[in-house]
Amino acid sequence: MNKGQHLSHFFNPRSIAIIGASRDTHKLGHGVVRNLHDYHYRGDIYPVNPRAREVLGYRCYPEIAAVPQPVDLAIVVVPARYVVSTVAQCGEAGVPAAVVVSGGFGETGPKGQARERELQEIAARYDLRLLGPNCIGTIDTHTPVNTTFVVGMPRTGDIAFVSQSGAVVAAVIDWALGSGVGFSRMVSLGNSADVNETELLAEMAADPQTRVITGYLEGVANGRAFLQVAAEAARVKPVVMLKVGRGEGGAQAVASHTGALAGSAKAYDAAFRKAGVLRAGSLEELFDWARALAWQPLPRGNRVAVLTNGGGPGILAVDALEGAGLTLAPLTDATLDYLASRCPPHASVRNPVDILAGSGPATYARALDALLADETVDAAVVIQAPQDWFYPTSLAEVIGEVAAGPGKPVLACIMGLASTADALAILHRRRIPNYAFPGRVASTLAAMLARRRWLETPPEPPIDPFPADRETAQAIVKTAVQSGAAILGGSETSRLLEAYGLSTPAHDQATTAAQAVAVAEELGYPVALKVTSLDITHKSDVGGVEIGLSNASAVRAGYERIMAAVRRRRPRAEVDGVMVQQMVATGLEVIVGWKRDPQFGPLLLVGSGGTEVELTRDVAVGIAPLTRGEAEQMLDSTLVSRRLAGWRGAPPADRSAVIDTLLRLSQLALDLPQVAELDINPLRVLAAGKGALAVDGRGVILSREDL
Amino acid sequence: MNKGQHLSHFFNPRSIAIIGASRDTHKLGHGVVRNLHDYHYRGDIYPVNPRAREVLGYRCYPEIAAVPQPVDLAIVVVPARYVVSTVAQCGEAGVPAAVVVSGGFGETGPKGQARERELQEIAARYDLRLLGPNCIGTIDTHTPVNTTFVVGMPRTGDIAFVSQSGAVVAAVIDWALGSGVGFSRMVSLGNSADVNETELLAEMAADPQTRVITGYLEGVANGRAFLQVAAEAARVKPVVMLKVGRGEGGAQAVASHTGALAGSAKAYDAAFRKAGVLRAGSLEELFDWARALAWQPLPRGNRVAVLTNGGGPGILAVDALEGAGLTLAPLTDATLDYLASRCPPHASVRNPVDILAGSGPATYARALDALLADETVDAAVVIQAPQDWFYPTSLAEVIGEVAAGPGKPVLACIMGLASTADALAILHRRRIPNYAFPGRVASTLAAMLARRRWLETPPEPPIDPFPADRETAQAIVKTAVQSGAAILGGSETSRLLEAYGLSTPAHDQATTAAQAVAVAEELGYPVALKVTSLDITHKSDVGGVEIGLSNASAVRAGYERIMAAVRRRRPRAEVDGVMVQQMVATGLEVIVGWKRDPQFGPLLLVGSGGTEVELTRDVAVGIAPLTRGEAEQMLDSTLVSRRLAGWRGAPPADRSAVIDTLLRLSQLALDLPQVAELDINPLRVLAAGKGALAVDGRGVILSREDL
Repeated sequence: MNKGQHLSHFFNPRSIAIIGASRDTHKLGHGVVRNLHDYHYRGDIYPVNPRAREVLGYRCYPEIAAVPQPVDLAIVVVPARYVVSTVAQCGEAGVPAAVVVSGGFGETGPKGQARERELQEIAARYDLRLLGPNCIGTIDTHTPVNTTFVVGMPRTGDIAFVSQSGAVVAAVIDWALGSGVGFSRMVSLGNSADVNETELLAEMAADPQTRVITGYLEGVANGRAFLQVAAEAARVKPVVMLKVGRGEGGAQAVASHTGALAGSAKAYDAAFRKAGVLRAGSLEELFDWARALAWQPLPRGNRVAVLTNGGGPGILAVDALEGAGLTLAPLTDATLDYLASRCPPHASVRNPVDILAGSGPATYARALDALLADETVDAAVVIQAPQDWFYPTSLAEVIGEVAAGPGKPVLACIMGLASTADALAILHRRRIPNYAFPGRVASTLAAMLARRRWLETPPEPPIDPFPADRETAQAIVKTAVQSGAAILGGSETSRLLEAYGLSTPAHDQATTAAQAVAVAEELGYPVALKVTSLDITHKSDVGGVEIGLSNASAVRAGYERIMAAVRRRRPRAEVDGVMVQQMVATGLEVIVGWKRDPQFGPLLLVGSGGTEVELTRDVAVGIAPLTRGEAEQMLDSTLVSRRLAGWRGAPPADRSAVIDTLLRLSQLALDLPQVAELDINPLRVLAAGKGALAVDGRGVILSREDL
Repeated sequence: MNKGQHLSHFFNPRSIAIIGASRDTHKLGHGVVRNLHDYHYRGDIYPVNPRAREVLGYRCYPEIAAVPQPVDLAIVVVPARYVVSTVAQCGEAGVPAAVVVSGGFGETGPKGQARERELQEIAARYDLRLLGPNCIGTIDTHTPVNTTFVVGMPRTGDIAFVSQSGAVVAAVIDWALGSGVGFSRMVSLGNSADVNETELLAEMAADPQTRVITGYLEGVANGRAFLQVAAEAARVKPVVMLKVGRGEGGAQAVASHTGALAGSAKAYDAAFRKAGVLRAGSLEELFDWARALAWQPLPRGNRVAVLTNGGGPGILAVDALEGAGLTLAPLTDATLDYLASRCPPHASVRNPVDILAGSGPATYARALDALLADETVDAAVVIQAPQDWFYPTSLAEVIGEVAAGPGKPVLACIMGLASTADALAILHRRRIPNYAFPGRVASTLAAMLARRRWLETPPEPPIDPFPADRETAQAIVKTAVQSGAAILGGSETSRLLEAYGLSTPAHDQATTAAQAVAVAEELGYPVALKVTSLDITHKSDVGGVEIGLSNASAVRAGYERIMAAVRRRRPRAEVDGVMVQQMVATGLEVIVGWKRDPQFGPLLLVGSGGTEVELTRDVAVGIAPLTRGEAEQMLDSTLVSRRLAGWRGAPPADRSAVIDTLLRLSQLALDLPQVAELDINPLRVLAAGKGALAVDGRGVILSREDL
């Protein structure tokens, strides 16, 4: 990977060579020259092709070395087997950047992967920045330059789109042309042999023409780097991402498409949340949101006014808004009075405001103006069902004019398809996003509000490291690694947790029934017994746990029952004995833990504990290092947080102990890279002020290959 | 409400009078005549207007009585104050049906409501079927007839659309014209003073030109009637409904728009499920589904083949399909070999099948043909990202041709907007639904599969009535009603449940501590005490429950604690004493109950019980009378059903006792119309074969107004 900063050459080159330029209109090498010409590129254009004298009127050169002037950017459109040597020639000629359109690399199997590594080496050797291979290039509408072969150039605009799929770029270009939505830049990344999504994110954040960054993501090159760059970018402008490959089949398809290293879908969710990246659920949503974020101010709150000429469309909007967590603005009496005085007699002036089918642009103008001036209104949605009394274009003009003033977001919904093209063009020129169906405004306003709230939350400083007995902790892990263990059992995990200042019930190990009784007598009754075996994960499933043993004979009997049950159900498990543990009868059961995500590192988890967790899946995740605010937010998003607060008359439990446990685990996870995952289940959370006890814990050591 | 069957006059009238016809092109009364003329109505057209001699070349009559020939349908477009007399004149003249376009009725307040009642009476007196008032009329593209004033006539087609919003009809017409999707009929219901959505549903079910019935619903006139008609219609053809007014604001907006009587959103969900009605989540989804249901066969299973010319669009489809419960077809080796032999070298022949950007219609044809012939494929999605090698129209033709044969559904996704109009027109003419974004195919295929599975489930016979002591049950309710009680307390509810053959723990009433001890001695320890008071709903919240009392002194102390707690927390509650109940220490806690929905009658509920229900909301609902299959389905959709089956090594609980309880409550609810609701919480479900005990129950008597 090259570290030089030549990315501007991809968007604002002074000269471009097209290696593989062709006179054959069916060839990609022709399409690139055609696009540069047709879409008004103003720099020098140098086709390179030993067998042609000119392409589309541009003088052709036999090789890159023959080009008489410096070349800022080379577009390489030659068969895969010539690509490496071609890029080397570019390097020799001092070309600082190249787009490799050609396919036949990593996406095709081992042979292609080897060729791609060669390409990377060549690029690095010449300090040449390389986009692709297997990509369709870049568009900058402001320069203007279009290095792709795809027909169509979007209007100038302020949305940047970075995509790991060229086909999706082609679809978005066609959609942009049809809808009149402008873009600042588009980039197709292809295989990301050199330039990757994270670098481009930084580049778009720095681009003054770009107000919103959008992306189609199959994966990221380096999760931690992405996280940092995305968080910085999101402070500057909205970042909206469509991350695909969520399910099993989708993840497999991603692997075979670009070979992106999988992080879990949950980890991406958490990473986006941590970085302030908005996550769209579909391609439509991506640009529904982007238009509004680029063109309209953010709402201050969640109170929306709906203005409509038909009851049904208004209700469609209200249903969707409520479903997305927004609410109807109550409107002041002054507004209601004004509306009543200016709207038709049977109009419904309460929100949703229905001014009825006959009302024209003047009535819309007065009503929208009054709604935007109302202090209870944070955002307005203006709906028009098709009618025959005035041109939709007039309404579009009026919305644009009235909305420009008050600094509140206005979303339009001029409904229909056959009669609305002109009105849409006006709205989009006036920077009012239009949605053909009222329901679509809801997720857009919710995304705008989410961004506003994220911007208002000041960035938190990292928390100070907890005092911890790191030497002991590292010794425990080292011993486990050296013994070849895959699992950290209950007693090792307890010691690890204790080293990080977490409390566990008193406990000791026993290898016979008599020893178990002796330990129990020392700890005091009642006790629990738990089988100790590196081979058994879910102890209670195999009869390996006995609880509430109140005297010596119960302990003896419990020990024998465990041994019998485990022998029967797991005859091949190697059993070390049992852990005798003081019973903790009280406290709410919570699970707290973490697992190392291949992309984003330790992914912390909190939720309903005990045997419930796999049934209710009441868990929230976050990425280490957690800040206190993130830990609070995670816990708040679970149901168990409501139980902790004192559900149905129960006394409140020690919520702060759960937060503390999360934060200590976050640090433990970062300190101990040889541990792959660690769970406390249950953490028994005692009454407020009394703390919490890690009753049962379990860790997993990284497998040998990963160490 | 008239019972005569003149609805055909709204769709196939031999002659139409337009009362209020106008020469002024800005008037609705002009638009109606214009539409009849422009959209080729072939019957007789009689404008009625005393101040005009002709409208658009049609001779005008001074009043309906002056029209020389019989009139099948009158369109009334006169000011509200003349509507009643006008309709009376129609009745006198023997006109069997009228569309009242005029507004100013129930939607405007009490005065308008009175006028609407008058209108209903007049219509009933003359046995005249009336659509509206406050509606935009009807369209039948096959007759053809367009009685609306809205510009635009959809193409002929086989989708019927029934709407409680005229504005939504106008929007759908414009969308239909833009997208080229044909319709058989459209109806705007307005205020439904006479003809309502349920009658029209039956009418559409009987229409041979209609293959799919769609609807925009704010509410129904009569829930039980709707349920029956919808279930019959759904057996004949797909019924897809968009029900709005789900949240609080939405429901209020519905009330002020058409004044529809609210049934709860959950009750509508349950009613649609019971009747086999597919519920769309948005207007877009409504017609996404309708097109595919009208044009394509239903899939036999959930295995989908995705064929694409770009990796990214394929992944978008796969993500969405998996999210909707569909799966990727594995494909046979024969198919994989064939694809490998016919596709470009680097194509990815595993599903999603990516034939790469350069592949043309011939490659699509071969690949689609092979996929549809593959026995592991139940449905195919064909995606094309915009490219410059061939016309999208060619692909559209090819998809239409190949898809016509094999009886498996094919959905197209020719992506983009600017370049796709012609291809779309071809696809829609060939009855292949197209979706501009790959994600949209998923909910459509899921809806098709849901319909297929519903059709394959044979209708269940009603279950035989359980033997029950109905006399005792009715006596208990009668006593409560006569005493003016609002609540059925624990002991009355227990007796009611016992009368219906349900088991409860042994119990008796006590009004002093000494009595409580005496009862406890008789029942045997341990016991629970529960305060008895009609004024206290959540007993445990106020300290009104003591459990696990194991001897006389514990009972005495418990009694005093309850009295003290209740006096402190609910000083004004009237306390009758306590119920002493045998403790049931074992069994899973389940809630089972029902509540009378204003539209659909008793709505049964089952879910996780105890104090959990309001936290986890793990509940499912269904409408009485439940069939056994419906009760099973309800329980299956809860998490508690997995607990009942034996979660994490626990022994299985008596699931059949829960089903039995649901079915007995379903019958109880229908037998006792004076009870508004009744809950058992918890029902303690014992080990398999051991039954279940209704530990705590509570009923609500209908309020006096409703009795």
